[in-house]
Amino acid sequence: MIFITRKERFNAAHKLFKEDWTNEKNLEVFGKCSNPNWHGHNYDLFVTVKGRINPETGFVIDLKFLSTLIKERVIDKIDHKNINLDVDFMKDRMASTEVLAEAIWEQLDSAIKGQGCALHCIKLFETENNYVEYFGSEN
Amino acid sequence: MIFITRKERFNAAHKLFKEDWTNEKNLEVFGKCSNPNWHGHNYDLFVTVKGRINPETGFVIDLKFLSTLIKERVIDKIDHKNINLDVDFMKDRMASTEVLAEAIWEQLDSAIKGQGCALHCIKLFETENNYVEYFGSEN
Amino acid sequence: MIFITRKERFNAAHKLFKEDWTNEKNLEVFGKCSNPNWHGHNYDLFVTVKGRINPETGFVIDLKFLSTLIKERVIDKIDHKNINLDVDFMKDRMASTEVLAEAIWEQLDSAIKGQGCALHCIKLFETENNYVEYFGSEN
Amino acid sequence: MIFITRKERFNAAHKLFKEDWTNEKNLEVFGKCSNPNWHGHNYDLFVTVKGRINPETGFVIDLKFLSTLIKERVIDKIDHKNINLDVDFMKDRMASTEVLAEAIWEQLDSAIKGQGCALHCIKLFETENNYVEYFGSEN
Amino acid sequence: MIFITRKERFNAAHKLFKEDWTNEKNLEVFGKCSNPNWHGHNYDLFVTVKGRINPETGFVIDLKFLSTLIKERVIDKIDHKNINLDVDFMKDRMASTEVLAEAIWEQLDSAIKGQGCALHCIKLFETENNYVEYFGSEN
Amino acid sequence: MIFITRKERFNAAHKLFKEDWTNEKNLEVFGKCSNPNWHGHNYDLFVTVKGRINPETGFVIDLKFLSTLIKERVIDKIDHKNINLDVDFMKDRMASTEVLAEAIWEQLDSAIKGQGCALHCIKLFETENNYVEYFGSEN
Repeated sequence: MIFITRKERFNAAHKLFKEDWTNEKNLEVFGKCSNPNWHGHNYDLFVTVKGRINPETGFVIDLKFLSTLIKERVIDKIDHKNINLDVDFMKDRMASTEVLAEAIWEQLDSAIKGQGCALHCIKLFETENNYVEYFGSEN
Repeated sequence: MIFITRKERFNAAHKLFKEDWTNEKNLEVFGKCSNPNWHGHNYDLFVTVKGRINPETGFVIDLKFLSTLIKERVIDKIDHKNINLDVDFMKDRMASTEVLAEAIWEQLDSAIKGQGCALHCIKLFETENNYVEYFGSEN
Repeated sequence: MIFITRKERFNAAHKLFKEDWTNEKNLEVFGKCSNPNWHGHNYDLFVTVKGRINPETGFVIDLKFLSTLIKERVIDKIDHKNINLDVDFMKDRMASTEVLAEAIWEQLDSAIKGQGCALHCIKLFETENNYVEYFGSEN
Repeated sequence: MIFITRKERFNAAHKLFKEDWTNEKNLEVFGKCSNPNWHGHNYDLFVTVKGRINPETGFVIDLKFLSTLIKERVIDKIDHKNINLDVDFMKDRMASTEVLAEAIWEQLDSAIKGQGCALHCIKLFETENNYVEYFGSEN
Repeated sequence: MIFITRKERFNAAHKLFKEDWTNEKNLEVFGKCSNPNWHGHNYDLFVTVKGRINPETGFVIDLKFLSTLIKERVIDKIDHKNINLDVDFMKDRMASTEVLAEAIWEQLDSAIKGQGCALHCIKLFETENNYVEYFGSEN
Repeated sequence: MIFITRKERFNAAHKLFKEDWTNEKNLEVFGKCSNPNWHGHNYDLFVTVKGRINPETGFVIDLKFLSTLIKERVIDKIDHKNINLDVDFMKDRMASTEVLAEAIWEQLDSAIKGQGCALHCIKLFETENNYVEYFGSEN
């Protein structure tokens, strides 16, 4: 087994906010992340795939395929968007980094299985100081 | 003369959008940066001050003073905010990196002059790939 | 399970030195790290917590709580200090990166358990070229 | 158990190319990486060793020993070289990042075992966007 | 006047080598950079443009235009290529970082002038430890 | 004219402290940087040289020469040392980043002039958030 990782980036607006709470309750729980008029981040996304090396190519997975897949299923839907309002795969979900990492996993998992390897990890940086890692629902 | 720089960070939402243009015209000129529901960035701000070294302290300027000044006049007003809607010093101005660098200069210039040194440069990163430098209206 | 990481920083002096060895023996084993008058580093500390996502908040742990905990139990005691002389939790221990990572784990472990999640990893960079990871005494 | 990592760097030329394929087939499979006249990279290599802390020294492994070992067995053979043509341990192997990580493992594994600890991971960055991790043939 | 910078990247092979010198003379002057079978780098290119802010758009220059220009005139010609053999604008020139920065200036200067602003600086990193800045032949 | 920069690194202990002041006065002026038992940093040093390109070599200055010069005159004297106690060129000077940048300039200036080019800038990072630039006493 060997693990290969592709980094992509996106810039998006979001807020941490529950509609059925007051602004005050949201501020108490989520602090400045609940600003009603949104704020935003440059997100760094690392997608790790595990598998065996194809002896013909020396590859676990074609990185052009992986990069295109991430762009089509994640980046094109979320880059320069509002995570709470514009992104189909985040509809009715909290726009936290944890939940976003899970949702990105769901966008990519089955298409990578089809390549004879497996999605291993979604690592998502919200800022240089905060990041989340998700290894799937079985881990 | 010696130059000293302090880095601070803020996360904010914005869009590049002229209200008197149609969405289509905005999209044509500003591309994905005009998304009506906003997007956002982790901004990196570098503030450079020039002056002579105080022989008593070895300092050009007290960096605690400089950091506090930047926080009070810039970061507290813009961090986790919407640049177009929430920031007094950006009211009625385009929320481009260029204009934002000019506006941050105006927030800091006179207070630094009062310390016996001078503001030299505002360097503002919108992403790792794009940054602006502004040296004041006389340069 | 999902993993979330918070990065903090501290700047400290230290030396690698055994008092019951001669300066020559210390120099032989520890090289330039044994300089009697100390040297120092900008340490980068990454604290990783694992747990389940709270469906109300979308959080594994409140990062403000985690950041405050790290500051109170680690950063306030070690930042701008001498690791060998000034830090209670390093008393009578070698000031190596390995031992320091273990000691930071001990400072944080029980307080994180109290939050319904668990400390997973202490990752500590001494320089950009050297870092240590510690996953607790059971791993 | 504790894990310690040393970072080293090398700059090398390579191409992804099978001699028994046409240029067209190589271009189809490997894209611009198959350029007949080579291209190159600044590789970042992270070598992770796991073991117990020596209570005398506070070390898992002497990092000077580890750094010297990596330089002798890897860096001196590959830095400022052509991976396909000049490197003995890559002879007759595809010059992909995956295969190179495996080959670097083989160069280091037994010598680290002799130190009372074990090689845990070879992490190799080809660019800031692509990296591979290899944990040995038993993992 | 305000300055805006766009970062692009390319990966290329090269060697420092004078054909009319012996291998020994080349090795003496250029060291390991003269390896006959090439080596390579991940180059980071920063292109800085100076001008006035357009009050309609808040821009000095449209960064999509600038990025496309750099891609067409520089990146497409040099990325995943051999600088000595494959790049028309480096024909019969030493493949040093200094000369390459000058050559990239020549590729971009006139097209940027046509946008009502001016090329200010080419900053080119060969490695994280070495970079060159060129401000044009008049500076 | 073209500008070339070499980055080197050193790790050192220091404190900001005037012997003829009380600990209380030192604490008031220098804050936590005055800790009597020292603290330390990983310093990043960028040395920029300006000159014309030698048409034979494509070089402004031989970077091996420059790197060796910096190592002999700066790094070997300050790396893994105490700046206040161990460094001859900092004797009786405040160990601030500003003063240190000036002192490093003095260590390098005349030797670089002897190479037919000129020292242009010393840029010295104390942390990722603070750096100083010095262009010589005539600027």
